[in-house]
Amino acid sequence: MPYYISGVTADWHALIGRTPEEFASKNNIQVKVRHAVTEIDAANKKVKVEDLEGGREFWDTYDRLVVATGATPFVPPLPGRDLPGVFVLRSLTDALAIKTYLERYHPRRATIVGAGGIGLEMCESLRLLGIEVDLVEKAAQVMPIFGTDISEAIRSYLEEQGVTCHLGQGVLGMEARNGKIALLETEAHRLQTDLVLLSLGVKPSAELAQAAGIELGVAGAIRVDESMRTNLPDVFAAGDCITTRHLVTGEEAWIPLGDHARKQGRVAGSNVFGGQATFRGVQGTVIVKSFNLTVGKTGLTGSEAERAGIASETVTLTHDAKPTYYPGYAQMTAKVTADKKTRQLVGAQIIGELNAVVDKRLDVLSVCIRAGFTVKDIEELDLAYAPPYSHAIDMPITAANLLSAKLGGDICSC
Amino acid sequence: MPYYISGVTADWHALIGRTPEEFASKNNIQVKVRHAVTEIDAANKKVKVEDLEGGREFWDTYDRLVVATGATPFVPPLPGRDLPGVFVLRSLTDALAIKTYLERYHPRRATIVGAGGIGLEMCESLRLLGIEVDLVEKAAQVMPIFGTDISEAIRSYLEEQGVTCHLGQGVLGMEARNGKIALLETEAHRLQTDLVLLSLGVKPSAELAQAAGIELGVAGAIRVDESMRTNLPDVFAAGDCITTRHLVTGEEAWIPLGDHARKQGRVAGSNVFGGQATFRGVQGTVIVKSFNLTVGKTGLTGSEAERAGIASETVTLTHDAKPTYYPGYAQMTAKVTADKKTRQLVGAQIIGELNAVVDKRLDVLSVCIRAGFTVKDIEELDLAYAPPYSHAIDMPITAANLLSAKLGGDICSC
Repeated sequence: MPYYISGVTADWHALIGRTPEEFASKNNIQVKVRHAVTEIDAANKKVKVEDLEGGREFWDTYDRLVVATGATPFVPPLPGRDLPGVFVLRSLTDALAIKTYLERYHPRRATIVGAGGIGLEMCESLRLLGIEVDLVEKAAQVMPIFGTDISEAIRSYLEEQGVTCHLGQGVLGMEARNGKIALLETEAHRLQTDLVLLSLGVKPSAELAQAAGIELGVAGAIRVDESMRTNLPDVFAAGDCITTRHLVTGEEAWIPLGDHARKQGRVAGSNVFGGQATFRGVQGTVIVKSFNLTVGKTGLTGSEAERAGIASETVTLTHDAKPTYYPGYAQMTAKVTADKKTRQLVGAQIIGELNAVVDKRLDVLSVCIRAGFTVKDIEELDLAYAPPYSHAIDMPITAANLLSAKLGGDICSC
Repeated sequence: MPYYISGVTADWHALIGRTPEEFASKNNIQVKVRHAVTEIDAANKKVKVEDLEGGREFWDTYDRLVVATGATPFVPPLPGRDLPGVFVLRSLTDALAIKTYLERYHPRRATIVGAGGIGLEMCESLRLLGIEVDLVEKAAQVMPIFGTDISEAIRSYLEEQGVTCHLGQGVLGMEARNGKIALLETEAHRLQTDLVLLSLGVKPSAELAQAAGIELGVAGAIRVDESMRTNLPDVFAAGDCITTRHLVTGEEAWIPLGDHARKQGRVAGSNVFGGQATFRGVQGTVIVKSFNLTVGKTGLTGSEAERAGIASETVTLTHDAKPTYYPGYAQMTAKVTADKKTRQLVGAQIIGELNAVVDKRLDVLSVCIRAGFTVKDIEELDLAYAPPYSHAIDMPITAANLLSAKLGGDICSC
């Protein structure tokens, strides 16, 4: 949606994965849009449905039920949150509303509250439209899931792109002028603004499930087992409304992302019809593009490892994406973290411009974490080498060489 | 070097990793260039050295010896192989000779014999210079390490770039006119040509080692253990002159590639000084860029699996590199092969244009093979997803979904 808002993606229809009509014609699935389930009667395998158009209410029955209620934007009770020109960005409806507002009022200044992934993507979108952007974040750093030095590199890059960052500042409220948003007040500043985007994260939509007696877990999301079963018989759940397992810490986690939702949905869908599928968990892989920058993470940072009781060692390296003599030369900076005791990889953070292909190295290290690879295992990887793609020794292997040396390994790196 | 020849890389000095002077000043290593070791006396820990400039011969001693004699181009005893205008491309000297010839004689037509990686890279280089290119290959397909359908896609692409492919044709000989190459005769054609590149692969340079009593293995390369030790005490070997283990077939293999050589060299270098490093083997990962095409492979093809006694299942899929609505849309075609019994991944071949980032998916699947992952493990990978980089479900996971369905798994793919 940020790409539709900026105009990079011209037609919003392209953002729709499948329409209700396609579900019907291709899959023989009847999608009842504008119907809200207001109650689950698990004892009698029934759901109460409200037809939002007709106003009619009725009970429907199920053999097996999948709760896929997703998540909704977290919006604190700020003064002015309902003013015209104050938006969240979660649904396509939100995106269309923002686009309409932009086209109608041509705002000169926008304020983005929350410096997470969507906040950063929207910084790019709005700057591409020539709008001045203030980015307000309560934490002392942008992208707080990253270590402070990577976050500082992101902040510095954003400022170069004309984004004014206001860190360590909570929002106190918003005010209108002529019936439209005009001012946002933080703990430190009063910012003139013509548009506000609240991108403060999401919360699980689990009220319906909770009312039905479905057990919740961390963050108030629905707790399921690896087969996507809730505590109630024949009731499954999947997607942004459920918890999962963080495979590095071993702890229950709530990490609502579209790729996890897709995989969980397949598992639930299979098991509803008697399958034996499982989804064992995630490892916190994320990637964000903002302007010409890619920043990504998989597993834990050094600090997160410490908090999880894992004594770790981290190396920081700047590495060529390909040889200097080949066109499109670029570099990336990475922080790669291993368990001191087991020498297994526990996490990586990488930042670089688009042509550094950060996503490739992130995916490689993500699979290494999943495999439980030690730094020695990574040193021996047989990655695809030719000069247009990488050095003979690519970043993940160099990182492992450096970690090996730091952990007292056999091979020094020089 | 193909990029220097085409002019994409302007300065050949950039291709030199480290000069003898840098070895001396940075690492306190004395490199004796233009000195040939002509004999190893392992019993007395001595080597006989010939100073090729001074003509002087002398014996030097060693505590530990590393044989790193590499490989040399395979050139069959063809009539005309020593004519001016007939080249191989292995050393920088070869590249400089080709470049000089191109600049002096401006050949209009060139013939490349051998449709492996270097042959394909040189097709691009010579076409970029406006030269008509004939590509001659004895096998019935280009890139014979690939399955026939992928090879056919490569051939078709090369023809689109103006390369005339002559497959299933051995070379009989070459003839000169006015003292320079003018004609190359294959089993089927007589080709007018102003330049010939023989890219028929390499052979290990192991004569010196063999004469000293060092045991050879497959393909006549030096056999070493995982610590890079030969059968002789205190004699190590590394690089293109040694065999290694193919980790999918479990067999001894000779796969001379720069990235393996680098890793093996580090292991030998460590162990010479008492280290405990090992290099356990390779899995046959290769990648080639030719024009705007990337083609890569890791592990085994279906046919190779059968030959190795592995009953396998292969899926072929065409997959988006990223969503259609995002700029830079591209597709790739992949063949992904799993062991029918264990369901472990055994190989993958991928072809696509440059912006399909084939190398990323190849590296992911390479690590999956190394980890011994089953298709189920791959279905659950936590890869980095955002629309500028991939779909929510990236190609390796879709391939695993399809393999799972084909192998009778829990989740269908539709």
